[in-house]
Amino acid sequence: MSPFFVKVGTVWDVQFTEEYMLINTEFSPQNSNAAKHVMGTRSLGLLGFMWDVAERLKALLVFAEHRYYGESLPFSEDSFRDSKHLNFLTSEQALADFAELIKHLKRTVPGADDQPVIAIGGSYGGVLAAWFRMKYPHLVVGALAASAPIWQFEDLTPCGVFMKIVTEDFKKSGEKCSESILRSWGAINRLSNTGSGLPWLTKVFHLCSSLKSENIQRLKDWISETWVNLAMVNYPYPANFLKPLPSWPVKEVCQYLTNPYMSDSLLLQNIYQALNIYYNYSGQSRCNNISETTAGSLGSRVWGYQTCTEIILPFCTNGVDDMFEPRAWDLDKYSDDCYKQWGVRPRPSWVTTQYGGKDIRSHSNIIFSNGDLDPWSGGGVTEDLSDTLVSVNIPEGAHHLDLRSSTDIDPPSLQLARSLEIRHMKQWISDYYGNYRRQP
Amino acid sequence: MSPFFVKVGTVWDVQFTEEYMLINTEFSPQNSNAAKHVMGTRSLGLLGFMWDVAERLKALLVFAEHRYYGESLPFSEDSFRDSKHLNFLTSEQALADFAELIKHLKRTVPGADDQPVIAIGGSYGGVLAAWFRMKYPHLVVGALAASAPIWQFEDLTPCGVFMKIVTEDFKKSGEKCSESILRSWGAINRLSNTGSGLPWLTKVFHLCSSLKSENIQRLKDWISETWVNLAMVNYPYPANFLKPLPSWPVKEVCQYLTNPYMSDSLLLQNIYQALNIYYNYSGQSRCNNISETTAGSLGSRVWGYQTCTEIILPFCTNGVDDMFEPRAWDLDKYSDDCYKQWGVRPRPSWVTTQYGGKDIRSHSNIIFSNGDLDPWSGGGVTEDLSDTLVSVNIPEGAHHLDLRSSTDIDPPSLQLARSLEIRHMKQWISDYYGNYRRQP
Repeated sequence: MSPFFVKVGTVWDVQFTEEYMLINTEFSPQNSNAAKHVMGTRSLGLLGFMWDVAERLKALLVFAEHRYYGESLPFSEDSFRDSKHLNFLTSEQALADFAELIKHLKRTVPGADDQPVIAIGGSYGGVLAAWFRMKYPHLVVGALAASAPIWQFEDLTPCGVFMKIVTEDFKKSGEKCSESILRSWGAINRLSNTGSGLPWLTKVFHLCSSLKSENIQRLKDWISETWVNLAMVNYPYPANFLKPLPSWPVKEVCQYLTNPYMSDSLLLQNIYQALNIYYNYSGQSRCNNISETTAGSLGSRVWGYQTCTEIILPFCTNGVDDMFEPRAWDLDKYSDDCYKQWGVRPRPSWVTTQYGGKDIRSHSNIIFSNGDLDPWSGGGVTEDLSDTLVSVNIPEGAHHLDLRSSTDIDPPSLQLARSLEIRHMKQWISDYYGNYRRQP
Repeated sequence: MSPFFVKVGTVWDVQFTEEYMLINTEFSPQNSNAAKHVMGTRSLGLLGFMWDVAERLKALLVFAEHRYYGESLPFSEDSFRDSKHLNFLTSEQALADFAELIKHLKRTVPGADDQPVIAIGGSYGGVLAAWFRMKYPHLVVGALAASAPIWQFEDLTPCGVFMKIVTEDFKKSGEKCSESILRSWGAINRLSNTGSGLPWLTKVFHLCSSLKSENIQRLKDWISETWVNLAMVNYPYPANFLKPLPSWPVKEVCQYLTNPYMSDSLLLQNIYQALNIYYNYSGQSRCNNISETTAGSLGSRVWGYQTCTEIILPFCTNGVDDMFEPRAWDLDKYSDDCYKQWGVRPRPSWVTTQYGGKDIRSHSNIIFSNGDLDPWSGGGVTEDLSDTLVSVNIPEGAHHLDLRSSTDIDPPSLQLARSLEIRHMKQWISDYYGNYRRQP
């Protein structure tokens, strides 16, 4: 085996006039499908901004799939078998793939050789876009890192910030909403201690299988994750990112959660109504399976391996600054769980050692965009670090809202954010041509 | 196995007043021994400059050994068994080791936490120093890359430049010197075709075992490598880098090579006298073993593996611009040889993809120093790339002469080079404290 295993699977590319390339570092099978879908319908959907900006800047658009996701499997179906086969799944290797892909495209696409390239990504894809510019500045003139929590590692951000932002979203979206949720955990705990409580909870939450007392924590986690996901996709118009949802879904949810002080059973019936916004907005769900993670394929097995090796994101709650049951960040337990599941232990400090943590000011040309409603903004870069490491904040934005297509009802802050982003990209391109032409 | 195998073996550190750290990226067992030696005798020898500058700048001095060299063996004696065990030997992994080492030192050495660090290295160690600043600018404020041929890859530098510089050194060091060497190849070829030629060559060159006709090429390679090494260590005073040698050894050699037009046998007897400067200056050599590479441990097995995976340095000769028999750069044959020896094939473009080739101007704070007499200067950076990517050229310098201790007979250009290097280092440090103090 040579030192680097480089394999990039499916690459979709659409050629405009090839003035330059945009590389999107999206990663999940779900996002890949979204990209495919976008390809059919053009400027609608999750990655619509890339289509809009590519058309505007006359760019070649490239979607690079992350290894071990989608169809980019180094050992086909054996890729997930054990840690030996998963050993080539690291962010470094993914960045190396992107580097090889860009070199390949420059060699093979007519006229692409001298063109500037821009990296774009959202969420983990945004983190990769930023890291790619940091590590391969000779291959991309800049990066748009949308909702990229590059500081959600180690102690760079207090572990409670994420859930605090989730809680604030619910507070803002309805009176007594977060208070209702905070009280719901006690209600579940009390009911699960009664003889009739477990079948009652099974029925009220429409669970697919009978709730057992050892699964109470799982039920509460499943509900918590739902609130988190709702905060992430709290978009101003109906959308289908994690699930098909109405506009401002947290506000919809909070309509059911106006009174925290009713009886446990009434409170939990309201909680179910609220959850149902997320799980059954399309009307097709028959029962809820709490052993499935709520984010669907985003919480896939492969991502689980990454969070057990490199991508260690500390989270905690205290029930005071947030609406969740208190839970400390316990790296030892986390590590033991990883070892049980994968036979590997996390290296929580490696990402900081490798990518610089907060000390990244010697880099340049990265836009960090964040939505104030997005819990991931807590670990993001929300202030300018230099003239060329800039932050773009979207007060009404949830998780990488700016990467979606423009719509008629986009808030002004979103429109402004996108035009700032495009202005920076144009600057990078003109700087590139300026430097390029000065060369002998 | 976790994604990164990180092990740093022996680390020698000497504490001054800890104002900041100098990290030396030296790598070979030979250099490690030199470092050990230097440690005893202080400001003499190969790495003396580091001692001088550390004392001047009140720095903690750290020698970081490269994995797979010296005592830093990930699988002890099994480390070299096969490509499976050698698979963790890459420059990326070495840089990762240095990163972990710096983090470790900052955690554990009292007062080191906030101190700036400077990377220093010569030759491959200089390449690593430059690459380390490029990839980990948050860990080192700058790098001194002495005689670092970062452009001796792919087609960044014409493959003939290296041997052309060797030839020029000999041309400058004596009339008819390079011409004598150029003619010597034909003399060897002619003699080896006669019945008595092989025993005669064995005797004249004091070979340890009888020369066979299939080893004629090996004999010529051994002689060529000797000329190359002499050019590398063509220092203005007696030194012991690859071998104990007099001052200006190429000039010494050329005293024997003043007449190219004598008979084959007389010419080759003179060649032997010239070679003997290199092989028997100390008077201890009894016979010459041409199956040993002339650079001793620098050409160790491990380096051979690196040159078969990542570090692919194209060389060629044409017998017109240089004094060697014409030989083209043949990557296919090179690759086949690597496969036979190690079961791996080289990836010649990866270094350029990874480290940027000539497109490195977005980086900062690297000094590229080169000696005009050093054949490696051909693949080095010998012009400023920006205000902070600077070149320091030493007309009288051979291979990383500037890293040696200062002596009373240092040429003025060398003294100037060292003072420039120190001035840049001081600037990096003061910039660091400036930025550092501005932080909240």
